[in-house]
Amino acid sequence: MLEIGRNAVNEALEAGANIEKLCVQKELRSDAVSRILKKARERGVKIVFTDKAWLDKNAGGAAHQGVIAVSSDYSYFDLEEIVTGARKEGRSLMILLLDGIEDPHNLGAVIRVAECAGVDAVVVPKHRGCGVTDAVSKTSAGAVQYVKVAKVTNINDAVRYLKEEGVTVFATDMEGEDIYSANLTGDIAVVIGGEGGGVHRLTKKLADGVISIPQFGKLNSLNASVAAGIVVYEAVRQRTK
Amino acid sequence: MLEIGRNAVNEALEAGANIEKLCVQKELRSDAVSRILKKARERGVKIVFTDKAWLDKNAGGAAHQGVIAVSSDYSYFDLEEIVTGARKEGRSLMILLLDGIEDPHNLGAVIRVAECAGVDAVVVPKHRGCGVTDAVSKTSAGAVQYVKVAKVTNINDAVRYLKEEGVTVFATDMEGEDIYSANLTGDIAVVIGGEGGGVHRLTKKLADGVISIPQFGKLNSLNASVAAGIVVYEAVRQRTK
Repeated sequence: MLEIGRNAVNEALEAGANIEKLCVQKELRSDAVSRILKKARERGVKIVFTDKAWLDKNAGGAAHQGVIAVSSDYSYFDLEEIVTGARKEGRSLMILLLDGIEDPHNLGAVIRVAECAGVDAVVVPKHRGCGVTDAVSKTSAGAVQYVKVAKVTNINDAVRYLKEEGVTVFATDMEGEDIYSANLTGDIAVVIGGEGGGVHRLTKKLADGVISIPQFGKLNSLNASVAAGIVVYEAVRQRTK
Repeated sequence: MLEIGRNAVNEALEAGANIEKLCVQKELRSDAVSRILKKARERGVKIVFTDKAWLDKNAGGAAHQGVIAVSSDYSYFDLEEIVTGARKEGRSLMILLLDGIEDPHNLGAVIRVAECAGVDAVVVPKHRGCGVTDAVSKTSAGAVQYVKVAKVTNINDAVRYLKEEGVTVFATDMEGEDIYSANLTGDIAVVIGGEGGGVHRLTKKLADGVISIPQFGKLNSLNASVAAGIVVYEAVRQRTK
């Protein structure tokens, strides 16, 4: 996995991510790069000076700003361990399940929201969805280092498992109960649909309830990360008031 | 201004935008394109068949899917007219002021949020910020056709004007009153800061209050459109409850 650009590299270094090597553009001298080099040396990370062409090629169009960190592939978390862990700590669970989000930018943006709102886990499916890639890591602005992402064989099984564990599962959809009248306290999981068709029919049927963000326009198409932000922050409001 | 891709072109046709011509890829045959052609003919829009190379060049990397609509430049709305109009209709105002958002994708995403939440106007500054460009239109997924965007010489003057009109102006910042305890009913305007430094110091000082989205992570950096979504939807909740 690659962390591309100063921000992402810095976060990976700060979070103590498993970095194999830090690649820095040869002729580049700047305070920002010096600070990154200092931090990498302190943490015993191997530093390799490369030419700009190599960085350009590996960044695949993203703004690398002269630095790319190569780390081992993302290690997904186990959903059951996350649930058990929260139970031990006596915290109310808040989990996001992503049903068919294919765009890495959308996944990265959802992970960023999850980090800010203190979401316990973001669950992605093995198929028909995006996993944690370099593009996801870059869009998440470093949040992928702090949010637990779990990969499951399929979302419906995850919904069944969570219900057995006493977690209330809500699917988001255009037609459902207003998020402001739904009870989002206690252990909850929220299913967010993909760019195309939204949450799948069976998943909606399995869920304990279907909730909606009220819409006042003609298009009514909120981006997945914005929808996730509005729903989890309504849960935050209900939990802290 | 260009509307790039089926979605954006469709929205422009639906909204009756001032389209000068519709450019369609010569050899392309599909149901989606046929529907667009039919709609364009019904609306008397001039249709030009071009080769793929022309579309690729003008799309500048965006996915044009064989269709680009060329329309006249965006006509900005007048902030005073929007305020007067809402007053006449007896509606409570909800206005977003963008202080230094430079990234067209962020502006497009904010406009999309504004459309869904029924925001009266999105205000952008003439300098130090992004105006309505093709990239903004594309990211807004057509919402730019329905949201009123006003351009002002500077944001601080707009804040002063709105305060004189009795609109309560809130600046968003990391440190401020919790959005859930702030009173977001009545005529309000919310200032959202740019990607870098957030809302400018003087703007915060001019505002009637500074409000914050509670943060529970280590990074605490919400994207501008997600932050806008969370704040305007909290206002929606308070207004409709």
